[in-house]
Amino acid sequence: MKKDLPSRWIYDYFSPSEVHKHAIKGTIYHGNSDIQEIVVAETHNFGRCLILDNEFQSFELDEFIYHEALVQPAMIMHPEPEKVAIIGGGEGATLREVLHHKTVNKAMMVDIDEKVVECAEKYLPTFHNGCFSDKRTVLTFGDGRKFIEDSDEEFDAVIMDITCPLEEGPAYKLFTKEFYALVKQKLTPHGVLSIQASTTSPVALQTYTVLSKTLQAVFPNVFPYAAYVPSFALLWGFCLATNDLDPAQISPEKIDRRISERVNSELRFYDGITHQALFNLPKYLRKALKEQTHVNLDKNPLMEQYPGLADKD
Amino acid sequence: MKKDLPSRWIYDYFSPSEVHKHAIKGTIYHGNSDIQEIVVAETHNFGRCLILDNEFQSFELDEFIYHEALVQPAMIMHPEPEKVAIIGGGEGATLREVLHHKTVNKAMMVDIDEKVVECAEKYLPTFHNGCFSDKRTVLTFGDGRKFIEDSDEEFDAVIMDITCPLEEGPAYKLFTKEFYALVKQKLTPHGVLSIQASTTSPVALQTYTVLSKTLQAVFPNVFPYAAYVPSFALLWGFCLATNDLDPAQISPEKIDRRISERVNSELRFYDGITHQALFNLPKYLRKALKEQTHVNLDKNPLMEQYPGLADKD
Amino acid sequence: MKKDLPSRWIYDYFSPSEVHKHAIKGTIYHGNSDIQEIVVAETHNFGRCLILDNEFQSFELDEFIYHEALVQPAMIMHPEPEKVAIIGGGEGATLREVLHHKTVNKAMMVDIDEKVVECAEKYLPTFHNGCFSDKRTVLTFGDGRKFIEDSDEEFDAVIMDITCPLEEGPAYKLFTKEFYALVKQKLTPHGVLSIQASTTSPVALQTYTVLSKTLQAVFPNVFPYAAYVPSFALLWGFCLATNDLDPAQISPEKIDRRISERVNSELRFYDGITHQALFNLPKYLRKALKEQTHVNLDKNPLMEQYPGLADKD
Amino acid sequence: MKKDLPSRWIYDYFSPSEVHKHAIKGTIYHGNSDIQEIVVAETHNFGRCLILDNEFQSFELDEFIYHEALVQPAMIMHPEPEKVAIIGGGEGATLREVLHHKTVNKAMMVDIDEKVVECAEKYLPTFHNGCFSDKRTVLTFGDGRKFIEDSDEEFDAVIMDITCPLEEGPAYKLFTKEFYALVKQKLTPHGVLSIQASTTSPVALQTYTVLSKTLQAVFPNVFPYAAYVPSFALLWGFCLATNDLDPAQISPEKIDRRISERVNSELRFYDGITHQALFNLPKYLRKALKEQTHVNLDKNPLMEQYPGLADKD
Repeated sequence: MKKDLPSRWIYDYFSPSEVHKHAIKGTIYHGNSDIQEIVVAETHNFGRCLILDNEFQSFELDEFIYHEALVQPAMIMHPEPEKVAIIGGGEGATLREVLHHKTVNKAMMVDIDEKVVECAEKYLPTFHNGCFSDKRTVLTFGDGRKFIEDSDEEFDAVIMDITCPLEEGPAYKLFTKEFYALVKQKLTPHGVLSIQASTTSPVALQTYTVLSKTLQAVFPNVFPYAAYVPSFALLWGFCLATNDLDPAQISPEKIDRRISERVNSELRFYDGITHQALFNLPKYLRKALKEQTHVNLDKNPLMEQYPGLADKD
Repeated sequence: MKKDLPSRWIYDYFSPSEVHKHAIKGTIYHGNSDIQEIVVAETHNFGRCLILDNEFQSFELDEFIYHEALVQPAMIMHPEPEKVAIIGGGEGATLREVLHHKTVNKAMMVDIDEKVVECAEKYLPTFHNGCFSDKRTVLTFGDGRKFIEDSDEEFDAVIMDITCPLEEGPAYKLFTKEFYALVKQKLTPHGVLSIQASTTSPVALQTYTVLSKTLQAVFPNVFPYAAYVPSFALLWGFCLATNDLDPAQISPEKIDRRISERVNSELRFYDGITHQALFNLPKYLRKALKEQTHVNLDKNPLMEQYPGLADKD
Repeated sequence: MKKDLPSRWIYDYFSPSEVHKHAIKGTIYHGNSDIQEIVVAETHNFGRCLILDNEFQSFELDEFIYHEALVQPAMIMHPEPEKVAIIGGGEGATLREVLHHKTVNKAMMVDIDEKVVECAEKYLPTFHNGCFSDKRTVLTFGDGRKFIEDSDEEFDAVIMDITCPLEEGPAYKLFTKEFYALVKQKLTPHGVLSIQASTTSPVALQTYTVLSKTLQAVFPNVFPYAAYVPSFALLWGFCLATNDLDPAQISPEKIDRRISERVNSELRFYDGITHQALFNLPKYLRKALKEQTHVNLDKNPLMEQYPGLADKD
Repeated sequence: MKKDLPSRWIYDYFSPSEVHKHAIKGTIYHGNSDIQEIVVAETHNFGRCLILDNEFQSFELDEFIYHEALVQPAMIMHPEPEKVAIIGGGEGATLREVLHHKTVNKAMMVDIDEKVVECAEKYLPTFHNGCFSDKRTVLTFGDGRKFIEDSDEEFDAVIMDITCPLEEGPAYKLFTKEFYALVKQKLTPHGVLSIQASTTSPVALQTYTVLSKTLQAVFPNVFPYAAYVPSFALLWGFCLATNDLDPAQISPEKIDRRISERVNSELRFYDGITHQALFNLPKYLRKALKEQTHVNLDKNPLMEQYPGLADKD
């Protein structure tokens, strides 16, 4: 009897008074790097998951939604993406999605935490699917901003798959106007920047709208979009920024054709139809995005805030 | 200090090992009808909410998403909806959405529980917005199936806003092929049926796909769709069924024009762009819908099941 | 299936990182007085319970433990308790325990909240057991301190059954040295003061030890004691203060004899043996009580604090 | 902000509708033996704790209560305990308590899981305090029942510190009449058996009362007792069984004298006064113990049951 009652729960607070929680069956791996606590656990509903500093990163059974949503629109929109940079993405699933593209001949990935990648290699095989040893992969460890600054390369796509700017740490410098301006310099003429852009929950919408506004201060074309990730129980935000390309200018048919021509794996989330869902945000989100005026700068960077209980009687 | 720790929580189990929960500030109303326990509570994040038999129904701050998603596509697609039937929808918000349409001259609503409507009238003013006393409203109480059977009317739209077929009770007879066939007989030639169709969570996808399949056994055109409802933390499922109309055949511009011509209120969720998001389901959902073969019949009706812990080691 | 998952939980935070929680089947009563929110709910494990401002007060199935522990040692120790004052105790169970004593000819109870007593009369019959209409009962409503100040009576026992001094409000003035000095003046020579004295949990031990110390600043004899209350999941603290009587000076046999002579009801918790358990505190609690030096004064009264997360890495 | 909300919780279900839960700061150790999952975690309120198969075993800050309560009454009652057997007790704290006694010249400990002991040696130093390398310690690994069967020794005390008989596994054979009869044969004339005997919670009282009754079927003298363990939020049950000794026959003064003569460490929980609290159970527990008639036999051994939701409306 007691065995059937799940005893170990990980909480994801949407606010102090709203929580989504998963029970875990057991821990596959636990360790500490210099940077964070790393846990790989087995959940009941969504298979294995990676947890960094008590925050869920992604889950085996639906990470395809998050990672296809982050990577595929950028890659498919681009006429011929050959060189791609990935910042973050330690599980390897972002890299996996990039390498599905036959056009790619170089995928440079930089992650701050070598131990996360080691751990993913051992314990998250369905996430990376062997892509760390693909010949096109160049994997380095260090600060993503420094990587972009120091790079001599130009990229057809830059994919940002890093944790939200929750607190002090290197991540907060990867969401500012200054950083995005650096990225823009390293993009080829049709180059695309794609970022994960936090939750679109109406109780914590600031990050998503500020990141979109900040990209608009740098790029001529900015397209916030969103996908529901069941294991997160959230409509998750993303944002594309380009010099010239526009996701509304590519037809569902063209998307499906490019997928069949370029992608050597069956996508499970993204296709021409899904593309329509991603980029047609509900009216209330478009309104919130439009009303945001704040641009995120190095000198006073955004730290993600959770709504408090200030409104409590 | 202790005051800041929320002490009263309502749980919404997605499964025994996955929970979304809201803390409530206090209870506005509590009572029991013959049918169910009725609670109106004040949440921290989403304002007032209606809770029937411990299940959240809708929340003040984002019920517009659920109710516009349920009502507006059906109403806008129809060339000129004049007579509408609503089954369920005790909060009054479904009726409110219907009555926003100037074309409507009769809105017949039947709910099983008079006490829910009384309670909504008093405690949920922003939900019904006075629509119970609109001259076009005909409100009756009783079984929805009997209402359809006995009705001499024909409807341009039938909107089903009832709780999921979780257990024994009248609701389960409102989700079967036999019932939908009855509805079809009472629809005008361009008539539209719109139903709320449970969660699309991959861990509890059966109801959504079976309802879609069941409608297909009756109607030539069936269109499952979905909208993210933040307070539910779920991508919520809906389904349209028609004889001839098709949501893909109406352009965003036409939708926006019809809204401006017919709707005497500012919609906050639905418009031409949002319509694209609603009806372009992600690939994995389309696949699950396609694979479902079960049709829900009176003789062995669906009872919603939650995934157990059978997979537990 | 879903029905079997309890969806409504009341939390009792021992600290922000330790919680004891009960699921409730349903609400029997809900209302607001001028002073607080009042809920009577039905729990799965412990029957009905009274909840004031989201704090559990007592539970049907084990309130006998709390109330006998609070009342019986004082009453049994006293050679012949005739006149008793009760401050607080709105459920009526403290009064019930007092009136079990044949020696009592007057039981004066004062509670701050008339609505709690009305609610108990209707919904908590096993708690009060009809004692509000006992001829010996004198029930008034108002501030307990004012009641003591204004009273012309002298009491053989004063029983304090009020909520902990958690925040601003009248309760905090009922735990100070000045108040206890007032009480002392209104006690007969062998008079006994008995108070509920908060949790003895080592993570929140301040209130218990300060109250004991404060009583010592007024009374020659002070005896902190404790009883485990299962529904609270806590070893609950109490304190006796007297001029001359000593719980160690009354033998188990004498206790049992007095119970059989004086008490016209079968006690379920308290007897001569239980008395030994109550007053022989474990060594670590005696040490903590001994080390406390703070006396609670009107000018800077104790507000119960919960341990924060300051120690968090 | 979010950092202050504890995200990792371990639940201890008292029943499906009553839970006590601790948040943990982080995991110190995680591993799997052949027998169980082993976790050492850091809690906010009670320091490090050992968790076996998702069940809390003991906590750094108050394990002294549990372990002194389990060991010291047996050891102090005995006129001169020299040889002691410990079954279970992998943390080492039971052994530590035994070795505090100068009279002991041999302490034989057998645990089923070598990995738990290894883990305790490394990560729970305050629990074992180096006692595994005491010269008087004889540590072996294997089944406790086989150890007793095969032993040529006679013991002055046998201490059972094993997990509750929750499910299939070797532990359930260590709580039966047949096993206790074996133990009795291996006790010296004044020998004492002391066991941990599960919770005394009124919602799950079966194990405690059956174990007491079962010991009574073997031993002339049986003394159930109990101590509140704050980190468990439970009054925890223990039971002593002897041929001749009786805890009521030893005065508090004699207890304190024996402690000062024999014990080379300062006890924090147990002394002459605490002894009175331990062995004077509240009346309702004595009644439940008296009413139990079931004796636990090898052929149909007790499996601990948790109260279900059968009573739910």
